[in-house]
Amino acid sequence: MKIVGTFLDEISHDIPHQNWGREEWDCDFKAMHAMGIDTVVLIRSGHKRWMTYPSEVLAKRENGYMPPVDLVDMYLEFSEKYGMKFFLGTYDSGCYWHNGEYRKELDINKAVVEEVWKKYGHRKAFKGWYLTQEVGRAKLGIIDIYAEMGKFCKSISGGLPVLISPYIKGVKAVWAFSPEINAKDSIGVDTHSKEWNEILSGIQGAVDIMAFQDGHCDYHELADFMVVNKALATRYGMECWTNCESFDRDMPIKFLPIKWEKMLLKLKAAQKAGVERAITFEFSHFMSPNSAYLQAGGLFDRYCEYNNLPARAKDFRG
Amino acid sequence: MKIVGTFLDEISHDIPHQNWGREEWDCDFKAMHAMGIDTVVLIRSGHKRWMTYPSEVLAKRENGYMPPVDLVDMYLEFSEKYGMKFFLGTYDSGCYWHNGEYRKELDINKAVVEEVWKKYGHRKAFKGWYLTQEVGRAKLGIIDIYAEMGKFCKSISGGLPVLISPYIKGVKAVWAFSPEINAKDSIGVDTHSKEWNEILSGIQGAVDIMAFQDGHCDYHELADFMVVNKALATRYGMECWTNCESFDRDMPIKFLPIKWEKMLLKLKAAQKAGVERAITFEFSHFMSPNSAYLQAGGLFDRYCEYNNLPARAKDFRG
Amino acid sequence: MKIVGTFLDEISHDIPHQNWGREEWDCDFKAMHAMGIDTVVLIRSGHKRWMTYPSEVLAKRENGYMPPVDLVDMYLEFSEKYGMKFFLGTYDSGCYWHNGEYRKELDINKAVVEEVWKKYGHRKAFKGWYLTQEVGRAKLGIIDIYAEMGKFCKSISGGLPVLISPYIKGVKAVWAFSPEINAKDSIGVDTHSKEWNEILSGIQGAVDIMAFQDGHCDYHELADFMVVNKALATRYGMECWTNCESFDRDMPIKFLPIKWEKMLLKLKAAQKAGVERAITFEFSHFMSPNSAYLQAGGLFDRYCEYNNLPARAKDFRG
Repeated sequence: MKIVGTFLDEISHDIPHQNWGREEWDCDFKAMHAMGIDTVVLIRSGHKRWMTYPSEVLAKRENGYMPPVDLVDMYLEFSEKYGMKFFLGTYDSGCYWHNGEYRKELDINKAVVEEVWKKYGHRKAFKGWYLTQEVGRAKLGIIDIYAEMGKFCKSISGGLPVLISPYIKGVKAVWAFSPEINAKDSIGVDTHSKEWNEILSGIQGAVDIMAFQDGHCDYHELADFMVVNKALATRYGMECWTNCESFDRDMPIKFLPIKWEKMLLKLKAAQKAGVERAITFEFSHFMSPNSAYLQAGGLFDRYCEYNNLPARAKDFRG
Repeated sequence: MKIVGTFLDEISHDIPHQNWGREEWDCDFKAMHAMGIDTVVLIRSGHKRWMTYPSEVLAKRENGYMPPVDLVDMYLEFSEKYGMKFFLGTYDSGCYWHNGEYRKELDINKAVVEEVWKKYGHRKAFKGWYLTQEVGRAKLGIIDIYAEMGKFCKSISGGLPVLISPYIKGVKAVWAFSPEINAKDSIGVDTHSKEWNEILSGIQGAVDIMAFQDGHCDYHELADFMVVNKALATRYGMECWTNCESFDRDMPIKFLPIKWEKMLLKLKAAQKAGVERAITFEFSHFMSPNSAYLQAGGLFDRYCEYNNLPARAKDFRG
Repeated sequence: MKIVGTFLDEISHDIPHQNWGREEWDCDFKAMHAMGIDTVVLIRSGHKRWMTYPSEVLAKRENGYMPPVDLVDMYLEFSEKYGMKFFLGTYDSGCYWHNGEYRKELDINKAVVEEVWKKYGHRKAFKGWYLTQEVGRAKLGIIDIYAEMGKFCKSISGGLPVLISPYIKGVKAVWAFSPEINAKDSIGVDTHSKEWNEILSGIQGAVDIMAFQDGHCDYHELADFMVVNKALATRYGMECWTNCESFDRDMPIKFLPIKWEKMLLKLKAAQKAGVERAITFEFSHFMSPNSAYLQAGGLFDRYCEYNNLPARAKDFRG
C-alpha cells in the first residue's frame, strides 16, 4: 500500500505554519514527487477569516483577510510542473455548521466554489474537489452538506470527482487542543457502521471517494473499521481510500511526526481491508525532508527504504 | 512598520532554552542587525531564583542560583559590537506582587537596579530600562510598581528611558500552561481604555515608552485596541510602540513561530493606528535563522523579502 | 560529576519518535562515546503491544505487534562497536501493575526475561538489567515486583547487576499528558525517606544500583533528597547513581531539552551528595547532536565545553 497523495494543510488551524515561500514549496513538491505522490489535496480554501486565495466572496461576506500570496495559483502551478492532480478543498466557516446553521455553510460554500471555478477551473491540474467539513458521526447536517455540495461541485465542473475524509469516532478522537489523548465518547464498529450506512445512502452520487482518517482508533482496531468502510463504499458505489495520518496522536506534543512502525501497521491494515489508495495528512509537516520537524525526514527515509525507492531526505534539503 | 527591536528572553519561564554559547549569540546578534534591529531588551535580569548575571543581591536575599555565564555582560558586549541599544529588564520574583506584597517586589527590585547600575551602568550600550512586571489590567499594585520603579531607574541612571510592555486582556489572554486558547475573562476596548487611562495617569513621568503586546486579542480587533493605546500614550506624553509577537498563540503547541501572514496583519494594524516603532517578542526563538525552531528562519525570510532586505536565513546558519 | 550512561527510549510512550535507521543510530552511539558515555540502558523491551525485538512471548500472550527492526540486536551491536555496557529493560504492560494485578506483570516479565536471555544473553555487551516499572512511593506491589524480578534476572544471567530508576514524588511529579507542571500530591523528604527505607529493605540483594530521576522536585530541594537516597543505598548495600534528566519539566511543551544551567545545578547537587555515577534520560532526544530538537546539540556543546571535552555537535551532524 503506497502513499500516492497528500493534503496541503492550508489554512491550518492546529499545526503551526512553516513560513515557506515559492522556493520552499517548489522543493517540497519535488520531494513529494520523488516519494510517488501524484495527488495533492488543498484541505480548505478558507477557514474563518483566513483565505488561501484572494477571494472577493470571503472578503465581502465573511470579512476575510486578503492573503499576501495566492496559494491556489501557486499549488496549481507546482501540480502542473510535477504532473500531479490538484483537489481543491471547500470553505470551513468554523462556526455555521457547528451552530446548527448548515444552510449558511452551504450558501457561502456555493459562492466560494463558483468563484474558485471561475478563477482556476481552466487550470490543467484542477482535477477534483474535497469537501472540507469533517465528521465522525451522522450529525451537524453533514448528509445535506456533503450531498448538496458534492452535487454542486460536480455540476459546475463537468463532473470532477469529489472526495471526503471523515474520521472514526474512536478511542483517540479528542479535540486537538485538549491535553487528553483518550476520548470518553467514542463509538464502536457497530454504531460506526450503522451511522455511516445512513450517511452514505444519503450522499450516493454526490461523493466519489471516501478516505477515512486512520488515526482515531487503536492500531489493532483499525482493520475492523476499514473492512466496514470498504464494504460501505462498495455498496454505495464509491472508491475507498485511506487517509493515513503521518503525525502521532499518542504523544503530549500535539503534533509531531508519527513513528514509522505505527504508519506501517496502518498501511498494512488498509491493504488487508482492500482499500484502494492511500493519501496522507500530511506530507509537508510530517513526512517531508524539508519539514521544520526533522523527525519527518526520518519518516521519509524509512518509507522510501521500505518501498525500495531511491529517494533520501538528505538529497532534498536546501 | 519595520521591526527595530527584540526582547532577549532570559530568564525564560515558558519557552525552552536553546543552550547557546558565546559563538551562537554573536551569530544571532549579527542576524538581528541584518534584519534592521537596533534595540535589544533583556526581558528580566532575574526570575525567582534564576539570574542573568552573578547578583550578590539575589544570591543573598532570594537564594538565587549563581549562573554559569554573565549574560548581561555578554549582551552588552554584543550590543556594542553591533551598534545596538541595550535595555535592561528588572527582577520578577514570580511571587511577591502576585501575593499582594508588591512592596517586597519594589524593595528587592531597587536593590537589583542599584547593583546592576553599579556593575554595568558605565557600559556604552546601556541605554534604557524595562519594567518586567506585565499586566493587562489595573491590578496587583501595578501603578505603584511602574511609577516607583520607573522613577527610581531614571533617577539612578541620569534619566535613561523606561519601557513597559503590558498585554491586552483580550480573548486570547490565557495562561501559557493552559491547554486552552480562548480566555473566559477577557475585557473589551472600553474597559481596557478606562483601566489604562487610570494606570497611565498614575505613572506619567515615570515611564517613557509603552509597547503593548499584540497577541492577546483577535486579529480584526487589534487596530481598535491600538488606536486607544496610541491616544492614551499621547495624552500622557509617552511614546507608543508595539510589541509584535513572533510566536503563534492559536496552536496546541505553546509556542512555535507565527505565520508570516498573521504577523503582517498585526504590523499593518500598528501602522494604521500610528504606532511609532515595532519591537518583537522575540527574535532568537521565533524569527532567527539560528533558531532551533526552523519555522523561524522562514519567518525571517518572508519578513526580509517583504521589506526588500537582502538578508536570507541560509546565509546566517552556522 | 560526569554523565557516563544514557537510557535508550525505546519504546517511548511520551516522547515522539525520531524515525532513525541503522545509520543514524550508529552516528548517535558515536556521539555518545565522544561525550564519555560507556553504558546504555534500554528503558523497556516492550510496552503494551509494542516490542523492541521480535518476541514470540509478547506476540502470543500480549498480542504484541511484530516490529520492523530488532532494536535489541542493533543496540547490542553498536554497544559492542563502541565498547559500551548494555542494560536491558524489562516489559511494562502499561496495565496489570496499575490495576492491582502485579502477579500478572511478574509472570509475563519472567517469560520475557527468559526469552531475551536465550536470544541475546551470549552477546558480549549484555551487562545488566533494568527493572522498568517506575514508582515514587511504596505502592502498586513495587516491592514484590523489584524483589522478585531482580532475583529472577540475576539468577538467570549469572548475577548480572540490576538497576532501578525511581522518581521522587516531589512538587513536579505530574502526569506527562497533564498541562500542569505542579503536583498537588507531592511528598516531602521525610515521607520519601520513610517509604524508600521500606522499599529498599524489601528488595535488598535483588537490586544492585538505584538511580533516582532528578527532575521531580525543585532544584534547591534536590540535594536533600539525594543525601537521603545515598544514605539509604549505602544502608542496603546498593550503588547510588543519579538519573540526570536532560529534558525540561518546567515548560508548556512536554518535553524539549533542558537548559544547561539547570542540568549543571542537578549534577552539582549529585556530586555534593556523594552520588557515584550519573546517567541521563536521555541522550538521543535531548543531548545529541543528531536530535531533531536542535537545542540538544547546544546542550551537548555546553556539557563538553564545561568538561573540557573536545567533541562539538557540528562534528557529528550527518
